[in-house]
Amino acid sequence: MTSHVFDDAVALEALGDGRFRGHTHPAYANMVGPFGGITAATLLRAVEQHPDVLGAPLSLTVNFAGPVADGEFEIEAVPVRTNRSTQHWSLAITQGGAIATTATAVFGQRRETWSDSETPAPGAPAPESLEQQRMPDIVVWAGNYEMRFIDGIMTPGAQQESSSSTLWMRDSPARPLDFTSLAGLCDIFYPRIYLRSGQMTPAGTVTLTIYFHADAAALAAQGDDYLLATAKGHRFNNGFFDQSATIWGHDGQLLATTHQLVYFKS
Amino acid sequence: MTSHVFDDAVALEALGDGRFRGHTHPAYANMVGPFGGITAATLLRAVEQHPDVLGAPLSLTVNFAGPVADGEFEIEAVPVRTNRSTQHWSLAITQGGAIATTATAVFGQRRETWSDSETPAPGAPAPESLEQQRMPDIVVWAGNYEMRFIDGIMTPGAQQESSSSTLWMRDSPARPLDFTSLAGLCDIFYPRIYLRSGQMTPAGTVTLTIYFHADAAALAAQGDDYLLATAKGHRFNNGFFDQSATIWGHDGQLLATTHQLVYFKS
Repeated sequence: MTSHVFDDAVALEALGDGRFRGHTHPAYANMVGPFGGITAATLLRAVEQHPDVLGAPLSLTVNFAGPVADGEFEIEAVPVRTNRSTQHWSLAITQGGAIATTATAVFGQRRETWSDSETPAPGAPAPESLEQQRMPDIVVWAGNYEMRFIDGIMTPGAQQESSSSTLWMRDSPARPLDFTSLAGLCDIFYPRIYLRSGQMTPAGTVTLTIYFHADAAALAAQGDDYLLATAKGHRFNNGFFDQSATIWGHDGQLLATTHQLVYFKS
Repeated sequence: MTSHVFDDAVALEALGDGRFRGHTHPAYANMVGPFGGITAATLLRAVEQHPDVLGAPLSLTVNFAGPVADGEFEIEAVPVRTNRSTQHWSLAITQGGAIATTATAVFGQRRETWSDSETPAPGAPAPESLEQQRMPDIVVWAGNYEMRFIDGIMTPGAQQESSSSTLWMRDSPARPLDFTSLAGLCDIFYPRIYLRSGQMTPAGTVTLTIYFHADAAALAAQGDDYLLATAKGHRFNNGFFDQSATIWGHDGQLLATTHQLVYFKS
């Protein structure tokens, strides 16, 4: 049995003292360095593999401070504070002693409370009825994801008035959902400036935050089925814009909300 | 001339090597520890006062790892990586050597690009035509803010179906807007669970992220006028929920988007 390419990409070797060695994976290459989603997933995996981890992911913030070069990198994961129901982590990715990425994560234990969701999934046709979109070959990482758009497909040359997209998505080949793969999926919404400019404008995520709204059992219950997502930018201003995305399970359950600030040139 | 209470609260003494000494301010006390917004503002102020700072705030993430006790605290601000247009910071608040708060910030220099906003301000009656809402005295920090609600006022005993609020807000007494005061205003949207439960359910911000969409001149141009804001929760699930807020200037300009994950009991 061969492992899924995603699991190969986020694989880490424990070096002790909260340090882990990883390698960039060619299948998750972006135009410059690795796909941000695989970096986020790998950082989350480091905490999950730390001997002192408490509970499951609640939030993750990743700051893309500098380029990650192809090859080996080291992650340091430090549990800075452990409380009764939450645990705060500080993380860094280094290469050759230089910090490429910083991150903070909160893990914790959920207890049963009153619960409700105010953000229902939009109506959408069945994923199988929609065409699978392919990104240009230069966007290597996109080959690991199946994306079937309901609206907001980027069309080269067309300057669209809205940066909003709604799509079904999952790993390709399909893979049972867990926190790490969900972290990766939280970054597949290519820069919203592409939709507005009608071209692959130079752009890169500066900082990414994910809030996880479901526990491990709820993610496992999604199996390898499609997830529904919407993504949208709010303001594009002099070199930077933000975009937010909401991700629901195939069953309509809100699984994650995610936000990022993106650098762009025009 | 006396200084504004906000400026007293975020005042820091530089200790050298990126370390600063601050003090909690009784006027910004919350039910437990200080108001999160004043903590966020103080962290931002530390970076602004650091001799190596480059440009203006683009993003800030604050992780409320543990309680901040009344009294003195120390902030350490480290510029972990400086690029051509962005600078990444790691920060921590310590008391007696224990980490109470961690944070990361991105500062940077904006360059003129194509710009647009996709999130217009909602229509709202003039702030002067709306009643000023007062929070219970136990919420001490709220006395430093003027809040005039258009909708989504918490009513004790009323379990509302939506966690959305829209309001005009500003410092009280009025104070010219800058990045630090905007950071404070980004956290004045009390836990959305209050609206849903109809009571001041025990709740506290776990992690807060702010994206700044305007430059210093655009903030200064707001003067001390009211800002318009909406805040809303997405999913409440077994002890944690997220809430997002959007903040516009009096002129309708989108100034900041902010998101947080909140712990709650019920």
